[in-house]
Amino acid sequence: MTKRMNINADMAEGYGPYDIGNDRELLKVVRSANVACGLHGGDASVMRQVVMQARDNNVSIGAHPGFNDIWGFGRRKIEMRSDELEYLVAYQIGALKGMASYAGIEVTHVKAHGALNTMACSNKDYALAVARAIKTVDRDLIHLVIPGSELEAATRELDLAVASEAFIDRTYEDNGMLTPRTIEGSVIRDPALAAERAVQMVQDMAIISRQGTRMATEFHSLCVHGDEPTGLAVATAARKALEGAGVEIVTLPEMMAV
Amino acid sequence: MTKRMNINADMAEGYGPYDIGNDRELLKVVRSANVACGLHGGDASVMRQVVMQARDNNVSIGAHPGFNDIWGFGRRKIEMRSDELEYLVAYQIGALKGMASYAGIEVTHVKAHGALNTMACSNKDYALAVARAIKTVDRDLIHLVIPGSELEAATRELDLAVASEAFIDRTYEDNGMLTPRTIEGSVIRDPALAAERAVQMVQDMAIISRQGTRMATEFHSLCVHGDEPTGLAVATAARKALEGAGVEIVTLPEMMAV
Amino acid sequence: MTKRMNINADMAEGYGPYDIGNDRELLKVVRSANVACGLHGGDASVMRQVVMQARDNNVSIGAHPGFNDIWGFGRRKIEMRSDELEYLVAYQIGALKGMASYAGIEVTHVKAHGALNTMACSNKDYALAVARAIKTVDRDLIHLVIPGSELEAATRELDLAVASEAFIDRTYEDNGMLTPRTIEGSVIRDPALAAERAVQMVQDMAIISRQGTRMATEFHSLCVHGDEPTGLAVATAARKALEGAGVEIVTLPEMMAV
Amino acid sequence: MTKRMNINADMAEGYGPYDIGNDRELLKVVRSANVACGLHGGDASVMRQVVMQARDNNVSIGAHPGFNDIWGFGRRKIEMRSDELEYLVAYQIGALKGMASYAGIEVTHVKAHGALNTMACSNKDYALAVARAIKTVDRDLIHLVIPGSELEAATRELDLAVASEAFIDRTYEDNGMLTPRTIEGSVIRDPALAAERAVQMVQDMAIISRQGTRMATEFHSLCVHGDEPTGLAVATAARKALEGAGVEIVTLPEMMAV
Repeated sequence: MTKRMNINADMAEGYGPYDIGNDRELLKVVRSANVACGLHGGDASVMRQVVMQARDNNVSIGAHPGFNDIWGFGRRKIEMRSDELEYLVAYQIGALKGMASYAGIEVTHVKAHGALNTMACSNKDYALAVARAIKTVDRDLIHLVIPGSELEAATRELDLAVASEAFIDRTYEDNGMLTPRTIEGSVIRDPALAAERAVQMVQDMAIISRQGTRMATEFHSLCVHGDEPTGLAVATAARKALEGAGVEIVTLPEMMAV
Repeated sequence: MTKRMNINADMAEGYGPYDIGNDRELLKVVRSANVACGLHGGDASVMRQVVMQARDNNVSIGAHPGFNDIWGFGRRKIEMRSDELEYLVAYQIGALKGMASYAGIEVTHVKAHGALNTMACSNKDYALAVARAIKTVDRDLIHLVIPGSELEAATRELDLAVASEAFIDRTYEDNGMLTPRTIEGSVIRDPALAAERAVQMVQDMAIISRQGTRMATEFHSLCVHGDEPTGLAVATAARKALEGAGVEIVTLPEMMAV
Repeated sequence: MTKRMNINADMAEGYGPYDIGNDRELLKVVRSANVACGLHGGDASVMRQVVMQARDNNVSIGAHPGFNDIWGFGRRKIEMRSDELEYLVAYQIGALKGMASYAGIEVTHVKAHGALNTMACSNKDYALAVARAIKTVDRDLIHLVIPGSELEAATRELDLAVASEAFIDRTYEDNGMLTPRTIEGSVIRDPALAAERAVQMVQDMAIISRQGTRMATEFHSLCVHGDEPTGLAVATAARKALEGAGVEIVTLPEMMAV
Repeated sequence: MTKRMNINADMAEGYGPYDIGNDRELLKVVRSANVACGLHGGDASVMRQVVMQARDNNVSIGAHPGFNDIWGFGRRKIEMRSDELEYLVAYQIGALKGMASYAGIEVTHVKAHGALNTMACSNKDYALAVARAIKTVDRDLIHLVIPGSELEAATRELDLAVASEAFIDRTYEDNGMLTPRTIEGSVIRDPALAAERAVQMVQDMAIISRQGTRMATEFHSLCVHGDEPTGLAVATAARKALEGAGVEIVTLPEMMAV
């Protein structure tokens, strides 16, 4: 049996004159793009450009909503009313749908950005806010989440499609959580190592901790980070190794249609 | 024959803790609301609230895109690339569509805000940018414009539905342009006077200058300004007088369906 | 012996077309103004206007720095690096000093705004960040704080001038903390009641809880809130009652010079 | 006789996670830095970093105020009331003075950024607004301008110190204006060519057009652009060539003290 897997990355996080990541090249490697929606990064021009390039590369697109925080890049935790957060997420999904019209493609998933994702993983109110926004704007959207999080629970509670992801370029702890970035070696920058890990994870359908523990985890997508200088090389190596191992790299909707 | 006419007003121009206008009451008088989309005013929470209230009052909604200029309220002229302007407009239309999902109603028109409207009335590149954004995101949207403007021409050139508007609470000059706000009496604050003028304009299908000249002009909507303290009284008096004269006040889509 | 007391209020929290509070009238009642500095409210034009009016009313001015959060009015808690917070505060103090040049008056104090104040009351890193910013930009500034807070401790640790404040229009709990706004009656809107409380507090140099407990507390200023509709009446009544009781209402520098 | 000349460049134009230019290296070549002040680029953390590095490299600093336009990088022309523009400039000068406290150095000049500079070169109201802001906040600041512009005239009218600049890396037309960037070759990217031109300009105290015309022009500073990829090499070559020709490269205050 041929295995299939999705690879996703955050994109469109530039802003006006500011450029971040290497979207053009990364779009040739991933099959799903999480597109910033203008509040933590990604103005309308950047969003449109990524949407066009995604279409040209047969990459599916998702909204990547974040806090209204361009100076903190959406990485600062902000406490706000969960109803206001919900509307902020709905606004961003709608905005990306508008921009997707330029490419004539559909927005097919949502993945929360940065501190919003982190907070909503453990805060049920925030998790439900994100899920409600999705359900209101387009209940066919796939919600891409960290497995086992409140985001996953809220999405199931609202009866929406949920996909989960594992990380190619980050190590895990024995408790299944990501190793904090402050710990040496938590970000994997060696393409060969990342590629080997990616194949193991997909073959075993498990995440593997720094300490070597295998934890069986269902996931539908592997996430790579384009803002690391080594991100493109890591993603490219991982994809090549996966394909070499007989894994077909597909879009998130294709993955979920299995 | 019963005449019909639409009345429209700008709405949702508050922001965070800041409140402007009296949307709640004005929504009982107008039949179409131009909803600010977050860039010159109107955050996601305000947008959602107005959309819900519009639905409850059988008011049709349109996007009211403006420049990215919260501190200038979208009233400052900004020179930018017309392609970037186009994407900014598309972004805002998409965002409002997202928020309209909360009320389960459709966005049915677009009307440019403030300095963007003013500039696009005489700048063909800007006018085409707005029209292209509409055509790309949703070609069924009605574009509400000043009659005779480049905005009207661009909209016709792209073969989109165009509606035009006259002003209840502003005087005109003999050349058909609005009297500048800096001239005494250019804003009509007397409800009785505004009501009398509104009836005359609709009965004659003409705008009437300060100097008394009648200029035959096709228009589909009468605009009132909610940010004037007298705006609500003027709008209320005009609607009552129009209905007393046998004019049915309808939504913009109903008006265009005639 | 004549007692003296300062009264302070937050000001300049409008923004562009948006107006909040009634600065013009409140400046006739208070003797110190906490001037918003552009990030949670208060653009350069509003700041300048308040600075000019403060001078005309012999009101001393202080910087009222907040988070970079115009849509949340600085009332949302934001987690950021404390060094970045420090620079953000320094930036705002500098900006107000620039605007104060228009009136030819000195900035004489700093009082943190909203969520920044709340967080820094219990977070030592944030408290030190605010105090360090003050020490760096102008070590002669008086830091106006909640008595007993980490802000007070940090300010003393850095050997800066510290003034503390009590609230005219808020009730306290037996533990000395403000009654949360969510509890009925926590905001005092009755001018007569507020006036009576203000006199008691100053005469006893104590805060008084809802339950009637008197807690001896040294304070140099009484704070009123201009954004409550009743704020002006409460402040006016309190000042009149205090003066009737022989208390001279002075600026914060005058108060600290005693 | 030893000639002296200043070299200046725009700096601190990054923002949050976004980086632009190569301030660290460029600060080893120039002697004056125009520091962005938070509105078109340059948040408080970036400003502080550049100020510290400027001090370490014996580089004098100036405020580089721009429009409130982070997405357009201050390169979009904005029409606003000239009094509001004035206060916006004053705000930014004040903010930089705050940040300069970290390095214990003085802000010694002002140079307007991007579209604000361009507009104020030919718009007298804008030019006077910038000059008035300088005069109000600190009348000892040197105003660095394009020679022959309205900015120069306004600065002289208000009796402020004025310095003028020529461009190392841009060509001129026969009318003394910069060749528009849209024309091939208008930006000089060849270090050797730029170096040769710089020496000629300083030796002749003249600007030289594309067509080869020499126009005698008094200038006190040569401007280089760090946001061009070739900017650092061009600046380095120019400085070396100038020093080789016996020109001492000094700070702007040193230059004006001659």
